[in-house]
Amino acid sequence: MSGITIEVPIRVRYADTDRMGVVYYGTYPTYFEIARTEYMRQRGFTYRRLEEEGYFLVVVEMVVKYYDTATYDDLLIVRTSLSELRSRALSFDYMIMKGGRCIAEGKTYHVCVNREKRVVQLPPHFLGILRDGRA
Amino acid sequence: MSGITIEVPIRVRYADTDRMGVVYYGTYPTYFEIARTEYMRQRGFTYRRLEEEGYFLVVVEMVVKYYDTATYDDLLIVRTSLSELRSRALSFDYMIMKGGRCIAEGKTYHVCVNREKRVVQLPPHFLGILRDGRA
Amino acid sequence: MSGITIEVPIRVRYADTDRMGVVYYGTYPTYFEIARTEYMRQRGFTYRRLEEEGYFLVVVEMVVKYYDTATYDDLLIVRTSLSELRSRALSFDYMIMKGGRCIAEGKTYHVCVNREKRVVQLPPHFLGILRDGRA
Amino acid sequence: MSGITIEVPIRVRYADTDRMGVVYYGTYPTYFEIARTEYMRQRGFTYRRLEEEGYFLVVVEMVVKYYDTATYDDLLIVRTSLSELRSRALSFDYMIMKGGRCIAEGKTYHVCVNREKRVVQLPPHFLGILRDGRA
Repeated sequence: MSGITIEVPIRVRYADTDRMGVVYYGTYPTYFEIARTEYMRQRGFTYRRLEEEGYFLVVVEMVVKYYDTATYDDLLIVRTSLSELRSRALSFDYMIMKGGRCIAEGKTYHVCVNREKRVVQLPPHFLGILRDGRA
Repeated sequence: MSGITIEVPIRVRYADTDRMGVVYYGTYPTYFEIARTEYMRQRGFTYRRLEEEGYFLVVVEMVVKYYDTATYDDLLIVRTSLSELRSRALSFDYMIMKGGRCIAEGKTYHVCVNREKRVVQLPPHFLGILRDGRA
Repeated sequence: MSGITIEVPIRVRYADTDRMGVVYYGTYPTYFEIARTEYMRQRGFTYRRLEEEGYFLVVVEMVVKYYDTATYDDLLIVRTSLSELRSRALSFDYMIMKGGRCIAEGKTYHVCVNREKRVVQLPPHFLGILRDGRA
Repeated sequence: MSGITIEVPIRVRYADTDRMGVVYYGTYPTYFEIARTEYMRQRGFTYRRLEEEGYFLVVVEMVVKYYDTATYDDLLIVRTSLSELRSRALSFDYMIMKGGRCIAEGKTYHVCVNREKRVVQLPPHFLGILRDGRA
């Protein structure tokens, strides 16, 4: 969408692995969460502040494709971009890179809700920053 | 596919929740894993034994749709079924139920690999049990 | 203390293991949490209800001793008992059993706080139930 | 022991929190694991390589003391030092700092085992590096 891609480094924790010797498949959603936190920070605000203002980007759908594995102490890069931005919803794309190769891809779809869990519009200053595209 | 649906109860752990007060979105893949473990056990063998025989059902894709939330101490039911069964691959469908309502749905796609991570055929006795459909 | 020991079964999840092939050392605190949840349920109330009434048993200290390992699909038993009970604090003892042998032991110390995070007395009905010792 | 203290930054993940709004008490062992991984890297070798050479520092005991809480997006510093070093065992001390204050402390005790899970001596080059104390 905005064309801006943020690269977020993640060092694999021992805790992230399973007895197959590799990163547990259920760890990738956590990597996506870290990546979108850093995406938002680098775009000029924090998701933490958004929550403090009473807005929550709840996940309504996720897709993950696994191409290869990673293991403990690997330094991964999550290429993160905003793939859709509407007044009440947005989605992120993620590519997990290990040494230049993509080992997994994912997408998360979010809607914006308030403290009462009602779907609401994203606050204007937040929308503005994301639209502007200043990285 | 086989039409057999197994219901797997899962009690939400405190550790499964996040500061939004609900089950963390990245916990659902773990619920799916528990559900397919129990599915296989009830169909007459265990995934643990499959691994001991040198076969691994690695996840190649996952889709999750989130409709509502769950929280600590909720007793969830995961309705689990085999949606596809081929000689080298299979997929599972999951519906996460809370008090009669579906709060999330998911699907995982797996291929069978051996210890050298090469795609191989599922062992015949395993395939046979799944095809037979004795629950 | 009260002499009552509750046995809580826990099936090891794949997610609980790490690349050493065994349950990750940081998973045991989660097992303790499940065990004390079930301890309280079997003693006649739930920790969830305690929180709904505005009381929280925050952990102030934990000790874990690891004697042996467990792995995926093992069925563990957590022998759980209340080792201390005071008006504002309590502690739990845990023994993690695998096939009749103790593979780990732990202890957690808790104080009771209210929604403002101030240390307060445990509510009388809760204290009474724990003192009574009806299992 | 060696007097060298390494400071390891950790950004709290959303996944690390629980419905009390703070970092789950069972997340701290993972923070310790990250901290000792970085401690070893900064002292001149990696734990990953140690495992590749067939040595494993299994945890035999852990103590954690919780003084205050942390939450999502907090940037914590884990002050990590080696508190004991013997030929077959070592222990680490951890202080988790948030904004200059210590919110939790911990200690882990490890023994060195080989691939057959027998207790063995730490390899000499590893021992030498830790004793030298070049940071």
